[in-house]
Parts: sequence; structure tokens; C-alpha cells
Amino acid sequence: MFEYKILKRSKVSKARIGVFSTPHGEIETPVFMPVGTVGAVKTMSPADLKGVGATIILANTYHLYLRPGDETISKLGYLHGFERWDYPILTDSGGYQIFSLSAKGRQSEEDLERLVPVSERGVEFRSHLDGSKHFITPEKAIAIQENLGADIIMALDVCLPSGLSKQKVRSSVQRTHRWLKRSIVAKKKKNQVLFPICQGGIFRELREESARFINNLDLPGNAIGGVSVGEGKKDIYAVASWCADILSEKKPRYLMGIGYPEDIVEVVRRGIDMFDCVLPTRLARHGVAWIKTNRSARRLKPLDYGYESKDLLKSKSRSSEKPLDISCDCYTCKNRFSLSYISHLIREREPLGIHLLTIHNLRFVFRLIEDIKSSIRAGKY
Amino acid sequence: MFEYKILKRSKVSKARIGVFSTPHGEIETPVFMPVGTVGAVKTMSPADLKGVGATIILANTYHLYLRPGDETISKLGYLHGFERWDYPILTDSGGYQIFSLSAKGRQSEEDLERLVPVSERGVEFRSHLDGSKHFITPEKAIAIQENLGADIIMALDVCLPSGLSKQKVRSSVQRTHRWLKRSIVAKKKKNQVLFPICQGGIFRELREESARFINNLDLPGNAIGGVSVGEGKKDIYAVASWCADILSEKKPRYLMGIGYPEDIVEVVRRGIDMFDCVLPTRLARHGVAWIKTNRSARRLKPLDYGYESKDLLKSKSRSSEKPLDISCDCYTCKNRFSLSYISHLIREREPLGIHLLTIHNLRFVFRLIEDIKSSIRAGKY
Repeated sequence: MFEYKILKRSKVSKARIGVFSTPHGEIETPVFMPVGTVGAVKTMSPADLKGVGATIILANTYHLYLRPGDETISKLGYLHGFERWDYPILTDSGGYQIFSLSAKGRQSEEDLERLVPVSERGVEFRSHLDGSKHFITPEKAIAIQENLGADIIMALDVCLPSGLSKQKVRSSVQRTHRWLKRSIVAKKKKNQVLFPICQGGIFRELREESARFINNLDLPGNAIGGVSVGEGKKDIYAVASWCADILSEKKPRYLMGIGYPEDIVEVVRRGIDMFDCVLPTRLARHGVAWIKTNRSARRLKPLDYGYESKDLLKSKSRSSEKPLDISCDCYTCKNRFSLSYISHLIREREPLGIHLLTIHNLRFVFRLIEDIKSSIRAGKY
Repeated sequence: MFEYKILKRSKVSKARIGVFSTPHGEIETPVFMPVGTVGAVKTMSPADLKGVGATIILANTYHLYLRPGDETISKLGYLHGFERWDYPILTDSGGYQIFSLSAKGRQSEEDLERLVPVSERGVEFRSHLDGSKHFITPEKAIAIQENLGADIIMALDVCLPSGLSKQKVRSSVQRTHRWLKRSIVAKKKKNQVLFPICQGGIFRELREESARFINNLDLPGNAIGGVSVGEGKKDIYAVASWCADILSEKKPRYLMGIGYPEDIVEVVRRGIDMFDCVLPTRLARHGVAWIKTNRSARRLKPLDYGYESKDLLKSKSRSSEKPLDISCDCYTCKNRFSLSYISHLIREREPLGIHLLTIHNLRFVFRLIEDIKSSIRAGKY
């Protein structure tokens, strides 16, 4: 259990195909994990998710802890029983949401410290739902995730916004490392694995220190956090490279909160195996479709993966009889639902519109990953 | 085309099983038509609809005329092409929505006349979306429905609220009849059939007059309108009986806007073949599930169709691991999504919750109809 086997390596990059085994089945990597924030990937049933190619989903600890509560979920058959999803699940620690949702509207470092007071013991935050006060320690984050029962759980980390001083980042990385040790001690259950998270902002020295630290813990997988908090793409790719070069190649490497199609292409090349992102589902809610083109193929060779973000609420789409992408094999495209129809439904706030677009956007990402794998198999990626 | 064949008659009531043929396939009656207001049955894809047993859907002319517009839909392959639904479709005339949505908040008969001015030529109304003024004539209602391209279209009628004087109802019935004649003259397309609508409130004399009038027009099917505007159940059943007894038994009889499970049971017994209702989908949005029980079996013998309306937002449901109904064969029940899970999703406004409940409620109605048919086949209904 929780073994990682590498099946194939690219000859020209650090990309590889691997298989990670969990109590709920094997995950082939590179893998994209759709995000199910409140207990479902928006509008998608388990059958829909399997239909687009999902093999593992991510659930947000922060949201589920607040509602309906981790103890409730534990009683209802853990997350797998609750959501009726029998493939693997990963839960985040809640850290990212605590810092981003609770500190909304902050103007300065002082604001952040006031809104989300962090001490050595843990972090205090107010629920974004009702303003109620909560205190989460590394041990509590583990206990909550043991109640949720995902296959892969994450250690609580200090998730700072971008733009802070190296000294500030260094001390929070060191705290993250101490929390990590406490998390390992706190963890009791054998049917879950804990992934540690590398932090360090965009400082190479700190990232490498952190990567070495978590690598030495010899846990079954390693994660890289703090890259989806406002950094530019070049910084994200650099951080991915620095960390992946240090993190054991015998274990899956998970880059959290990534990403755009071009980001996926770039980070897999740098040795990343797992990623999650709300973009395909969030963009669908806003009427935006990812559509494959070959226009920008040059940049992405040999993958040939140009794409555009089509805004279906714009007038051009509203009168178009065309499907999203005739080359796509998703339910929405195969059945030729038109741009105009989906656009109409989204304008009318009819959930079927979001659903048809979510199916397509997720399938787009899973097809991208299939293409990446073919390229790796051919040794050309 | 548009032929109605009766396959089986009950020996103990006016219930029968028939088949109505349309350009998009045959419909076996009794049939329930889910309502797709803005171009989709809420949250349901065509595959989902076929999965629960739908063979024909209803689309609302009023909503589609306002947005995206009937001419737009005509250009995009009519409703069948637009919605990617290849089974039969019925459109209403828009009359019901014009009177109910435009006259919201009215206090008196004078208010109604001011808000929805009806003249011999047609009816003026303001869009519930943006307040824009529109004028619909019987001819215009036909032209719009020819643009929409449903298999079955309805004549524009004067849809008054309940509680009006017999004299008032009589004059509006007479106007409805004159409009009907104009509708027949206006209709051009051969691949659609027009159903006339019997009106007359709860006045037996007026209903019988109206039923005789529309019956004499010898159109391929007949409808009974104005029963879902606030009348009590006994009145609805009485109106169904009076009209069904007069309307030719060689043609399908469509009772508009019905209904609750017990209403379906009662009106089929009185010779009704077709009905539509927003209840299964609307209740789902409000967290209410129709669940089969045998408790009130006595009343519904020999169908044995007791049911309860379970409010999933109540605390008892919130902690229940049980599925909606273990005897149900819908996706939601077969996969054992729990009361607590669906309840959680609906509270979180996650569309998957509404979707899972809509699937169940619609399947509940289609199973009811399957049971009714078995009972008719056994000659016992």
C-alpha cells in the first residue's frame, strides 16, 4: 500500500509516468485532482467524474470541518461513504483556506496578523460563514482529516501571501517544519498517508532547505505549497524545479493549486506528478471554456497543446450553432450542445449550463494529461 | 403521424394505455411531461431525462420567447436542435405565464385588467425580466411556436385566476374559443399539431360547453386548462371528469399543470392521458423528496401508492445515513446517496444536491406511471 512505482521516464525531461497505490485503488501519474470544495466537485456526480477521467478527487478540510463537520462525516462512513466516491481522495490541511478566506480584505502584514493570529501552538481563525472563532493546531488538522478518512492527508502549514520579506518567510517555514514533526507524531491511522508540504516563497535558499527537510522525513509522497498565492508563472516553474530536483524521485511530487494548462505542461516536465486546481470548475461557472487549438503549438512542442479560453457570455458565442470543440470526446461536445445553448443556460443561471461546461473543461484537462502521457511513453516529452 | 392508438382499457375505470405518434417518435400514454422552463429541465441533461424515463418534455413558450427569442431558436435548429433532445416536445402557448407572472402582486380584478390588458385582438404584458412591453395575439403565439418547432403546440387562451364570477368566466371562455379559431387559421406547419384548450373555471355548464366546442374542432388531441390556478383537488377531479366525458376517446386528453402523485392517480382514472407539472423539479430545489410508502395504501388501492413528502432540510434527515428509498431504482437511490449528504449539498447550494433530488423525484413519477400502466394492463385500475 502507498507504494509508488515508476513505469516510464521521458528521455528529454524529468517527466515520468508512475502508479501510486492506495486503499481505494491505484492512481496513475501525472494526475489532475478535481476539487470538491463542499463535498462535491461542483455539479458533478461520481459517475460524471469517472466519465471525464477522474481517478482521485480533492476535498477541502476547511469547508467540511465547518459544515457538516468532520465528526458527522466520520459517522456517515467517512468521505468515501458520504460522497459515494470509491476511488482515492486527498484532503488538504485547511491551512490555505484559513489564511486566504479568513484574511480577505487585509491591507497589510499587521492586518494579516490580527485577522489570522498564528502562534507556535496553532492558528486562530474566524469562519467565513458565520464569523465563529476556531483554533486549529497541527494535531487538530490531523484529527479532522482522520475523521474525514481520505487516502492522502496533508500536514498543516503556515500559508503566507506573496511579497513578504525573506526573514518573515524563513521563520514561517521553520514553524511549518516544527508543525510537520508534531503532525507525524499525532497521526494514528494506518490506512492514510501524510504528505509534508515544502514552503519558502520564491526564495531558492529557503525552498531548497525546506525540500531537503521534508525529503529527509521519508514520507510516502511530498508536496510543494504556496505557489498559487499570487506568484508569476516563471516563479512557479522555478520553485517547481528547485524542489523537484531535491525531492526523492522514488515518491510522487504534488504541486498544490496548479493550474492552467500551460502550467501543467511546464511542471510535469520538471518532475511534478500530482496537481489540483479549481480553475476548470470555477471558469465553467463563469461561462469560460478551455478549447484546444493548434495556434500556439510552437510554444508547447512536442505536445502541440495550444488552447484558448472562450468566454461564452460574449455576443459571438451567443449566436453560434457550433459545439465547443468538435475534436473533444466529452458528453457536451459529442452531443453537439452549441455555444449558444450553453451560453443561454449560463445567462439564465440554469445549473445544466454550468454542468455541461464543467464536464468539458475537466475532460479538456484529462485529455491534456493523456496527451502528456503519450508523449512521455514515446520518450519525447 | 399524430395518430392515437389505444392499446388497452381498464375494465373498471376510464383509464387507458395508448400510443401517440409524432415526428420525433411515439409517446405511450398515460405520460408525464417534465417541464423545461428556460430550455432545460432544471439540472437535467437529455441523457439524464431518458435515464429517469422521460419520453416527451414540455418547454415554456413565454420564457423562450423572451430569452433567447424564438427566432434565435429557429435558426439554431429549433428546440430539438437547440436542446439536443431528439424525443417529442410540447410547447405551451405562453398564456398561463403571461397571466401569472405578469400579474404577480395583483389584489383585485381591476388590478388584473390593468396589469394584463386583454382585448379581442390579444393580450399585452410586461416581461417579468426587464419590464419591457409585449403584445401577443393568437396568431403570434402560433408563429412563435412554429419557430420553436415542438411536435405539439397549444392555442393561446385567456387564463384567469380562480374565484371569478360565472359571467366573467363565460365571456373569457367565449373569447378563448374565438382565439382558437384564429389559431387554427394561423397555423401553417404540417409537422406540428395544435391542441385546443378547454376552459370554464369550476362551472360545469361552461366546462361542458367548452369541451363540446373544442371536441367539434376535431384536432388530434385536446387539452384541459385552468385547473392549476388555485382550485381544490375535488374541483380539479370534477373538471377532469366533466371534460373527459365529452372529449373524444379516440384522442389523447391532456390535463395541464397536474400534478401531485395523488392527482395523477385520480385523473388517469377519469380518462386523462397526458399531464405536466413543475412539482418534482421545484420541490427538489427546495429539498423535498417524494418517497414511496405503503402507509396510505388503502386510499389508493389497487395501486398501493402511498407516499410522503420528505423535507431534507429538517434535522432528522441531516444526520441520516439512509438513502431516500431503498426500493427506488434511480441513480441517486441505487448509489445510496444518503439523506444527510443530499441535505448537506442543498444547504450549501451545491447544484449536485438539486440534481440528485430531481433525478429521484422525476423517477418517482415515472415509476408511479409504470405502476398505473401495470394496473391498467391487469384490467384492475
